[in-house]
Amino acid sequence: MYITKNDAVNIISKSNDIYLLTHRSPDGDTLGSAFGLCRVLVSMGKRVKVLCSDNIPDKYDYMSDGLPEYDFEPQTVIAVDVGDVKLLGDRLSVYAERIDLCIDHHQSHKPYAKATLLDSTAAATAEIMYDLVCELTDKLDIKTAECLYTGIATDTGCFRFSNTTAKTHRIAADLIALGIDHASINIKMFEEKTRSRVELERIALNSFEFFCGGNIALIVFDNETLMKLNADDGDLEGIQSLPIQVKGVSVGITVKEKVKGSFRVSLRTREPIDAAEICSMFGGGGHARAAGCQLTGDLDECRQALLEAVSSKLNLPL
Amino acid sequence: MYITKNDAVNIISKSNDIYLLTHRSPDGDTLGSAFGLCRVLVSMGKRVKVLCSDNIPDKYDYMSDGLPEYDFEPQTVIAVDVGDVKLLGDRLSVYAERIDLCIDHHQSHKPYAKATLLDSTAAATAEIMYDLVCELTDKLDIKTAECLYTGIATDTGCFRFSNTTAKTHRIAADLIALGIDHASINIKMFEEKTRSRVELERIALNSFEFFCGGNIALIVFDNETLMKLNADDGDLEGIQSLPIQVKGVSVGITVKEKVKGSFRVSLRTREPIDAAEICSMFGGGGHARAAGCQLTGDLDECRQALLEAVSSKLNLPL
Repeated sequence: MYITKNDAVNIISKSNDIYLLTHRSPDGDTLGSAFGLCRVLVSMGKRVKVLCSDNIPDKYDYMSDGLPEYDFEPQTVIAVDVGDVKLLGDRLSVYAERIDLCIDHHQSHKPYAKATLLDSTAAATAEIMYDLVCELTDKLDIKTAECLYTGIATDTGCFRFSNTTAKTHRIAADLIALGIDHASINIKMFEEKTRSRVELERIALNSFEFFCGGNIALIVFDNETLMKLNADDGDLEGIQSLPIQVKGVSVGITVKEKVKGSFRVSLRTREPIDAAEICSMFGGGGHARAAGCQLTGDLDECRQALLEAVSSKLNLPL
Repeated sequence: MYITKNDAVNIISKSNDIYLLTHRSPDGDTLGSAFGLCRVLVSMGKRVKVLCSDNIPDKYDYMSDGLPEYDFEPQTVIAVDVGDVKLLGDRLSVYAERIDLCIDHHQSHKPYAKATLLDSTAAATAEIMYDLVCELTDKLDIKTAECLYTGIATDTGCFRFSNTTAKTHRIAADLIALGIDHASINIKMFEEKTRSRVELERIALNSFEFFCGGNIALIVFDNETLMKLNADDGDLEGIQSLPIQVKGVSVGITVKEKVKGSFRVSLRTREPIDAAEICSMFGGGGHARAAGCQLTGDLDECRQALLEAVSSKLNLPL
């Protein structure tokens, strides 16, 4: 059942002992939205916990600063920025059948919760969350504001992408007016690169392949390379933006083989190519400009299947 | 003489046959502010021309779309985003003594105009210009809004840097609400990379040098490399952000030898290191986090002088 913001505020207000579930391979939006809500609910005297199937990269540590740590069984389970129940990941899949409320902004959202607040015009789930927490409290504290800012900034590529609206900027203005250290957050999210990240980029720049007259750019990080570099999720985050940045490219494909024989594919597209549509052919999903899917098997065969799907969408021979 | 925004609006309103001067090696802010003002003044029936000592990179072409081209002698000369009269460059230096009005936001501004509107709290000159043009006209057209958005976005690293304020975001919200295509502008300004740019980055990633225990990162593009790549100003723009992005680096130095024996130096710093202060030791200037200077002579000697100045500022042995 789809519900309104007011309904969601009512459900949350009445809830106690809450688990907030984030999606696997957590990003700034799922974490920022969950920790932002968590902080407000904790300040209201509720017991709340943020959970994730995967490890949370170090750069998001500030989000959980000073939050209480305790064990309790949930009375209410809320999923945040999780567009498909499969994206809960292995560890959280036990909650799949008992999600009371889902708050999300993905256009490709597949309903699974008892109640769903979906606003696909929002650039980030953190934008929806800002509206919700403003109803829950009169005074946002700085740490909550920093969580929400992080969610908005990361899902919009720091206000670069077409999902950024006037409303996105007005919320950012409100959050900055509260005194958050947005510049430090942005350095952590967008600028700071570890030496292994720099090395990953060097490898990417050296390994670009182009197809369809420069319309498709492809980079592959095979299992050996990733093992050798010992690159973690944080190092790999955003690497999928590199191919689409080359002039003339309208579909950028990044294939990462973190586990031997299992390929995480990220697609980035320029208008009017729909990335989610292409990825849905392989059981994946996402947004029009950024989407993903998972393939298993032989690298060459997966690569070929992807390239054929994209080139046929582009109406160009490979 | 320093003047207020109202004074500046009065001067501009009364002026006719106006030259708008931008700084050499033009960036999005000097061009966006100048073309934004130019468009409004042209719509008011005035004759206006934007001038620059250097060629304007192709990616800014949309700013001058549809503007009239004519020859006339100026009655009023206005400098926009030019922090020092030297930055007018060779071709525009003939106007150095007769600048009626300067509109700028650089903290290191050295007054040279008959009247100066300086607001160093503004993230970009385009932010000041937004206030001015809103006084000059009731209705901003989309192309003017796109020019001003470009100025604000480029000088804030797309809202990433610490100069970005709540006001910056509110202006961006207003401009986006007018219907500008901000996503396409951001692709042009921040994402799209030519093949020579990709090659420049590959060279940069391969040539990093670190000093002071990883606190200083240095990249040098010598004349030979730049000649071989045939990289233009557009390709080189923003390349100076690469060294500061490496984790642990607090001063990033980029040295570009576009002309044999002449070195354009760009400094990027993390708080509290003042980039403008260091560059002023070499006759340069800029902002606290980003500044530049020009050196001539032998590469090794220039390099050593720079590294010594920075390491002494850091209180760390080289």
